[in-house]
Parts: sequence; C-alpha cells; structure tokens
Amino acid sequence: MNSNISIINKPSIENVKGYYSNGINCGIKKSEKLDLGVVFSTIPAKTFAMYTNNKIQGAPLKVCQKHLRDNKAQLLVVNSIIANACTGEQGIKNSKEICNKAALSFGLKQNDIIPMSTGVIGEHVPTNKIIKGIADLKNKIKEKNLNNFSNAIMTTDTYPKIIGVKIKLDGVEYKIVGTAKGSGMIHPNMATMLSFIFTDVNIKKKLLKKAFNDSIQKSFNSVTVDGDTSTNDTAIIFANGLAKNESIKKRKSMNYKIFCEALDFITTELAKQIIKDGEGATKFIEINVKEAPTFKDAKLVGMSVANSNLVKTAFFGNDDNWGRIICAIGYSNANFNPDKITLSIGDIELYSNGKKTSFFEKDVKNILQNREIKVNIGLNCGNKSWTVWTTDLSYDYVKINANYRT
Amino acid sequence: MNSNISIINKPSIENVKGYYSNGINCGIKKSEKLDLGVVFSTIPAKTFAMYTNNKIQGAPLKVCQKHLRDNKAQLLVVNSIIANACTGEQGIKNSKEICNKAALSFGLKQNDIIPMSTGVIGEHVPTNKIIKGIADLKNKIKEKNLNNFSNAIMTTDTYPKIIGVKIKLDGVEYKIVGTAKGSGMIHPNMATMLSFIFTDVNIKKKLLKKAFNDSIQKSFNSVTVDGDTSTNDTAIIFANGLAKNESIKKRKSMNYKIFCEALDFITTELAKQIIKDGEGATKFIEINVKEAPTFKDAKLVGMSVANSNLVKTAFFGNDDNWGRIICAIGYSNANFNPDKITLSIGDIELYSNGKKTSFFEKDVKNILQNREIKVNIGLNCGNKSWTVWTTDLSYDYVKINANYRT
Repeated sequence: MNSNISIINKPSIENVKGYYSNGINCGIKKSEKLDLGVVFSTIPAKTFAMYTNNKIQGAPLKVCQKHLRDNKAQLLVVNSIIANACTGEQGIKNSKEICNKAALSFGLKQNDIIPMSTGVIGEHVPTNKIIKGIADLKNKIKEKNLNNFSNAIMTTDTYPKIIGVKIKLDGVEYKIVGTAKGSGMIHPNMATMLSFIFTDVNIKKKLLKKAFNDSIQKSFNSVTVDGDTSTNDTAIIFANGLAKNESIKKRKSMNYKIFCEALDFITTELAKQIIKDGEGATKFIEINVKEAPTFKDAKLVGMSVANSNLVKTAFFGNDDNWGRIICAIGYSNANFNPDKITLSIGDIELYSNGKKTSFFEKDVKNILQNREIKVNIGLNCGNKSWTVWTTDLSYDYVKINANYRT
Repeated sequence: MNSNISIINKPSIENVKGYYSNGINCGIKKSEKLDLGVVFSTIPAKTFAMYTNNKIQGAPLKVCQKHLRDNKAQLLVVNSIIANACTGEQGIKNSKEICNKAALSFGLKQNDIIPMSTGVIGEHVPTNKIIKGIADLKNKIKEKNLNNFSNAIMTTDTYPKIIGVKIKLDGVEYKIVGTAKGSGMIHPNMATMLSFIFTDVNIKKKLLKKAFNDSIQKSFNSVTVDGDTSTNDTAIIFANGLAKNESIKKRKSMNYKIFCEALDFITTELAKQIIKDGEGATKFIEINVKEAPTFKDAKLVGMSVANSNLVKTAFFGNDDNWGRIICAIGYSNANFNPDKITLSIGDIELYSNGKKTSFFEKDVKNILQNREIKVNIGLNCGNKSWTVWTTDLSYDYVKINANYRT
C-alpha cells in the first residue's frame, strides 16, 4: 500500500471529523439485541449510493434514491430485523414517516435523511418504536459509538465489521472508516448486504462518485456466496470535507490515486469480511483469473466458478475435483480458447493445454485442508485480471437456509 | 394429447422398425454394472444432435459433430464410467479408434458411427475393452434389448428412463422411443445428461431438425438442478423412415403438428424423469411463468427461481418463504413491472400488487409437505408462458457432491 496510507488499529467514528453515531435496542427485537442505529454528520456530506440491481427494491431504497437526488445527506438511520421490502405503498409511507420525524428530532431537512432497513421481507416496520428510538439516539450520539451502530445493523452476522485508514497528504490527515453487514448474499431474504463508508476528505463530487463506483466493482460486486442478489443491498459513502485537505480535484493526480487506493482497501476488506462471516462457510476461497482478453471476461470466469454449487461442495469435501472448475469455466460465456487454459490450486498446477498435468493428489489434498484457498486460472489470451471471493457450500448452509424461519 | 397419439405401455426398441440394441459390461467397471451399449439401425437414419453449450466439450462430441456433418448415422456406441473429456488429442484419437473398429465390426462407414461417453472428467477410456465389447454386442443386438442399453449408459441414475409413443396417421403407424440418463445437471463432473430418441417416422430432414430443436428448448433446456452445464450433455434423434408413412413435408400440416406434439411428450417426460431422479432431490418443483411479454422473459424468470439456492433450501425445509421467490424474480433480468407480479404456491395466492396477500400459513405448509409442488408466477404484462422443472436443495445434495470421489 502507498506509504501515505496507514491502517487504523481500532477504527471508530471518533477518527473521522464531524461524525457522531450510536446504536440501541428500540424494541423491534424483544431480546436485548441492538436493532436501530444512526450516524450524523455535523454538516451536510457529499453522498453517493449504489443499490442492488434487483428489480424488486425495498421501500427505504426508493425513498433514499429520492433524497439523494442532490447527493447530499446529513443523517443515516438504519434498522435491522425487518427489511421493509415487498410492503407496497404502506412501506414507502412508513419509510417517509421515519425520515420526517428524524428530521424534526435532529432539526434537519427531510431529504437530508437516509433511511435503511434490513431483515425479513414482506413485513411492516414498527414506525412508532423506530421514531421513539431516533429521539433516544439523538441524546446518545455524542458517545460516538460506531461499534453499537455496527451491532445494530447486523442480522445473522456473528461479529460487527469495521475497517479504517488514515491518509497523510501534504501535512494534512484525512480518514476513511467503513462498516458493513452481511452475513451474506446467502440471506437475501434477510435483505442483506449493507455497507456505509464515512470520510472527512475534501474531494470533488464527480471524483468521489467515480472512485466509489469503481471501488464497488472490485469489492462488493466481486464477492458471492450463492449468486442471489437481495432486494435491499446498498452501499453508501459520505464525505463531509471536514479534514480540510486541499480538495482532490483531478482524476490524474497522485492525490486521487492515493484516495482510490485507500478506499479500495476499505471496501475490499469489508467485502472479504462478509464472505468470511458467511453462514455455513468453512472455507474462504479466492479465485484469481489472469490473462483474460477483457476485465469482463475475467470476471465472468471468476463468478461462474465462484457460483458453481459443484465446485463449492467439492471444496467443502476437500475433493480435488478440478474437472468441476474446468467445467464452470467452460460455461461462463467468457471469451477464451479452451485449449489454452491453465488451472492451479495454491501453487500446484492441475491442468494445462487442454489436459490434466501430472501432480500428486496428496499435495493438493494438503492444500484443500486449509481454511483459505487460492484458485489461479490463466486464460492465456490477454493481460486483464479479476479476483473474486467466495465460500464453500456446506451442510450448515442448507441447514440454516432450510430452517431459517422454523 | 391428440387422439392419434397413444403412449406405449412398456416401450422397447422392438416397437420401432429397423432398430436393434443391447448393453453389456465390457470391463470398464469391475462390478457387474453394464457399461457399454449400442443401438443399430438397419439403414442409415436421418440424425440430428444438440450439444452442451459448454465451451469445453468432451472428445466424443467433437468426433460426433464431424460424423454428423451429413446428418446421417447408423450406429450409436455409448460407454459410461469415463467421459473422455479434458483428455486432449489422445482423447480424440481414442474416440476415433473406437468408431474405426466399430465400423469394421458392423460393416459400416466410419462416419456413420456416433460415439458417446459419460462419466468422470479427465481420464482416458480403455479403448481395447470398448472395442472388444462392441464386437460382443454385434452378436447380441438381435435381442433388441433397450433396457440393457439404458442401464449401460447410467452413471448415478437409480433407474433407467425409457418413454415411447405410437402415432396412427392415415392408417399407418409410426413410433418414437426415447431414453435418457441424468442423474442431473447435478453431476456435470459426471458429464451428464444424455438423451437418445429413435423413430421410424418418414419426415423431411429440415422438419425433423426443427421439431427436435424446438422440442429440446421446452424440455431438456427447461430443467435445472443447479445451473451447472456439463461438458458432454448431448441429445440425438435418429429417424430411419421405415414406418413408410407418407413423408411429413409441410411445416403447417396437421401431420407435422402431431409429430411435434408426440416428440414434445417424449422429451418432456424424459426431462422430468431426470429431475425426479436427481440425487438428493426430495421435491419435484414445477415453475409456471405466465403473462410474460416474451417467451425469453418467461424462461428467464423461471430459471432464476429454479436456480436460486435460497428458494431450493426453503422448499427442502417446507418453509413458505415467498420473499425468496419474489427476490429471485427480481434479479432475473427479465422485463416486467415489479408492482404487477402475482405468486401462488399450489392454488394459494401469496403475493399480488407489490405486497403479501392474506393467506393462512398453515394451508401453504400443507402444500409444501407434498413431493410435487407447483409454483405459479403471473407477470401481468403479456401473454407468453414457460414452464421450468427443478428440485429442492437438500443435505444429500451436499453430501453426494462433497464426498463423490472419496
């Protein structure tokens, strides 16, 4: 990583200027689990969001899109347990009502509020509990507790996910802190991946948008547990500029490059943590596709292998069944020459020039025992690469998803 | 079904004029399992094949494509246990050698032989055993035993699949008999779905091709266990004309329409049997998509739902988690209006106008206990329909595929 960037050891919202946050139990969940969180910026932040490409979108996403037409926001309100998706007109009314009351509580304009919900599809959120909770949170945000916020947005995640970096530039320091919840595309009914990134960097709107969009492609859009795309998946970045660095203005500047590198680190680490915490996952699998004619081809191959149930069950069973990987490459719809592919697991080459190489099965079995495994695919017909992350497919995946509501 | 068509009770190759067949154990498998089968037509038959769209194709498929340039064939030779896929130049040589020796045994031209293999990827077929087996079969085909043939091509299927119909037209009768092996796209490493259809109908080449291609779309291309497409999937139709019916010549004729209906019945029943015999399957799920703007949109929606691991695990767990179905419709990439969808399981409507309807969960649970379940999706924006068949996703699916080679 660029020497101007350093990782924050115990990242918190305190690291980033002008942000406040906390999380509480507002009573959606009867247990003591935190279920409502807010993050507040003392001034309106430049804000960009990327939404699920599912045609069926949760109600909060529709409200959020409207509120972000000016790409400005000041307060983020997120509840877990209920996704407020597939809830018709009433769902949208509820989401608007929450924003309306949050605006009154915090003394803000309604369209500077970003509402988000995650949890079960098809049920209505209890607006009164949430509205009361927001008023409570108004008094508690000075604690600047991002850990509570991260816990409040979790559904089936087993731990909160927070990553932070600081960047020193021309004697000025700015920070980026991000948090995310999964615990997987494996739970789209839990409507599923949310990620929020808070920075105090001063950057031109257009460049913030570009950096964020590019970063999402390489991170959240390159992980998969089961290929299911939820109704509520959203990633949002807030940049309030309070670090007062000299504005990052030029796409070709070193300062922009460094910002992108720092942002990519945040989004990629959060994406990997979501996969590692994927329910039922016993393995973390990195698929590196190299020598492709285009990025698109490389990603098609990676995603095809990552989404193959047969590849995933083989990894779960520690089976060096390379034929399944070759097969999934074959039906990926990518451009390549089948006779030129090479395939390695770890550093052992299993396949090249259209046939099996000679290797010791025992050596491959040894690699497959590991919790983290690298699959390297060379297409030998270009110079573009893409990396995709996924899990294996275990008994527990079936168990969790078959019995989720029973 | 048209009154000219009737189902043959115990279908056999004896029903179809001019065909002979049998199957034996030639020693590829050490147990007594049959592993080699042939079907012979006394005269060259008009022959069309549809292959996997996987870019990586087994060696026999490459030889088959060459031999079928003239769309004529007389002898089909199929071995199981080894797929002869990902075997490089040597694999193609082996497949050619088998055809060469089969041609000598049967006194035929080499390019009238169709070779097929199914089983494990990456290993070489024992050509000597197969060649000796073919010579043995030459002496045994007069038994006209299609059941042995069907057993010989099985890999992990639990029973052979044979369907037959007879069609009476203008006082002349012709037959169509088909056989297939799966046992699923669930075993692409077992290189997987093969289907062979034998008819004595007299039909113009062009119409035979069209009827076959159309039929495959509605049958074999509309079933899925896990979305994996194997390296060796192939369906072939042989029509030797020996029924001597007046040739079916016109696309708009009633005779052509009846032939298509009969052929569709054969291919659809075989496709459904493959799904029902899918390993680990505890449920047979039919997904009917109606009121789509195009057939393509209807099929996209059906396949998206059929391939969703979350939908499939919910069915395994008898969970009426309709949000997962709506979610899978949403990311199908089909054209539709999200607010107009209706969804029923059996005859209970669960969702319409963008929200949950009122229904009793108990009633849905009752339907979900059944082994066969119908999902009906209305898109309310057109008049095109498509049906897709699939299975649930069970512990056994994971078990079988995790431990397959161990």
